[in-house]
Amino acid sequence: ISESNFPVAAGLASSASGFSALTVAACSAAGLKLSPKELSILTRQGSGSACRSIFGGFVEWHRGNREDGSDSYAEEIAAKEHWPDFRMIATIVEAKKKPVSSRGGMAQTVATCPYYKDWLATVDEDLKAVRDGIKARDFEKVGSTAEFNALKMHATMITTKPSIIYWIPATMEIIHAVRQMREDGLQAYFTMDAGPNVKVLCQEKDISEITDRLKDLDGVTNTILCKPGAGAKIVNDHLF
Amino acid sequence: ISESNFPVAAGLASSASGFSALTVAACSAAGLKLSPKELSILTRQGSGSACRSIFGGFVEWHRGNREDGSDSYAEEIAAKEHWPDFRMIATIVEAKKKPVSSRGGMAQTVATCPYYKDWLATVDEDLKAVRDGIKARDFEKVGSTAEFNALKMHATMITTKPSIIYWIPATMEIIHAVRQMREDGLQAYFTMDAGPNVKVLCQEKDISEITDRLKDLDGVTNTILCKPGAGAKIVNDHLF
Repeated sequence: ISESNFPVAAGLASSASGFSALTVAACSAAGLKLSPKELSILTRQGSGSACRSIFGGFVEWHRGNREDGSDSYAEEIAAKEHWPDFRMIATIVEAKKKPVSSRGGMAQTVATCPYYKDWLATVDEDLKAVRDGIKARDFEKVGSTAEFNALKMHATMITTKPSIIYWIPATMEIIHAVRQMREDGLQAYFTMDAGPNVKVLCQEKDISEITDRLKDLDGVTNTILCKPGAGAKIVNDHLF
Repeated sequence: ISESNFPVAAGLASSASGFSALTVAACSAAGLKLSPKELSILTRQGSGSACRSIFGGFVEWHRGNREDGSDSYAEEIAAKEHWPDFRMIATIVEAKKKPVSSRGGMAQTVATCPYYKDWLATVDEDLKAVRDGIKARDFEKVGSTAEFNALKMHATMITTKPSIIYWIPATMEIIHAVRQMREDGLQAYFTMDAGPNVKVLCQEKDISEITDRLKDLDGVTNTILCKPGAGAKIVNDHLF
């Protein structure tokens, strides 16, 4: 039996939270004493991004070099107490199934996107900028790098044959609304996973104004406020 | 005094038709006898794409190599009678001003887009495919090449710093609607200039079904049916 307090929808990391919880619970039930790194490596078998959800705070996923992926794992780069007023507002725009699965999509992108190599060439630089930005609590640096990185990633999917276009009308509404927020002096940046939902990065001081503006958009059915939290852990509440 | 039977809006080539008409009219008034190629070179000073509108039928714009642009001009590659059932349905989605002018935008893209070189490397191949497709009246080849080329171009604008994002909610509605049409067996492809409006390439036999579907979309305020026409010419009707 499993339960989620987050919608199980495209691009909302539901498989990441679910698989990390399952891994921690199953290891505990089996009496396995694994280190956080070992848990991260193990849970990656269920869902790649789940390797990050073992940890709390701000986490980096190391790509690794081995063919079998055994050196691909995550580690915490800053505890949640390091930057307590960092926020992410997840917008929910639809519950429909993704048109192309992101796993199949990625293989197509590698094979057919004319921009894929140039995309890869910018990833390390962006990763360093975000890592440095988190350490320095530089919101503009983290936000602008994440936003441009997301646009570059979606541009590679859009130019895959056949095209993988996750953006829907509501996606564009939110993108333009966030750009307008910045014109109006609000500190807000958007980012996107492989799905139509947009996440808005912001700080605690601006939550109310940004949330109001997002909820006013036609295509936004709900918003979920997220903040740096704890990692996966054993709790004593039972689901059954 | 000038008059247009086409909306003067972003991405609808209003400057192309206007400047080619002005050039032909002004040369006639001044008693200049220029060849079509000379007219094409001259009118390009007003608006780049106007160099194509001197001609009728299917036209190719040669980029040229000279710094001063004097060898950049257009020529007809097939007369309108060559492919009389080729159609383009222009959708009108908004009358707002473009957020970033396409001229300023292009310079930013050249300077900052990580994909710009890879984009340039694919242009000659696409141009050849479309040219061959027109000569062979191969609708799928022309349509699919034009569509993917437009996506690649918009991807370079999206990944310009700062991002040039012309797509609005209605743009995504139309893109997904056209993809759905193909799923349903209709032959339709979309293409886009530097603006939010989408043009749907199709053939005479499918006009009614495709137009109905486009008009059903929330963000589409109007559609304009276009077909291969004549070039700029002197008429005897006066506007004043």
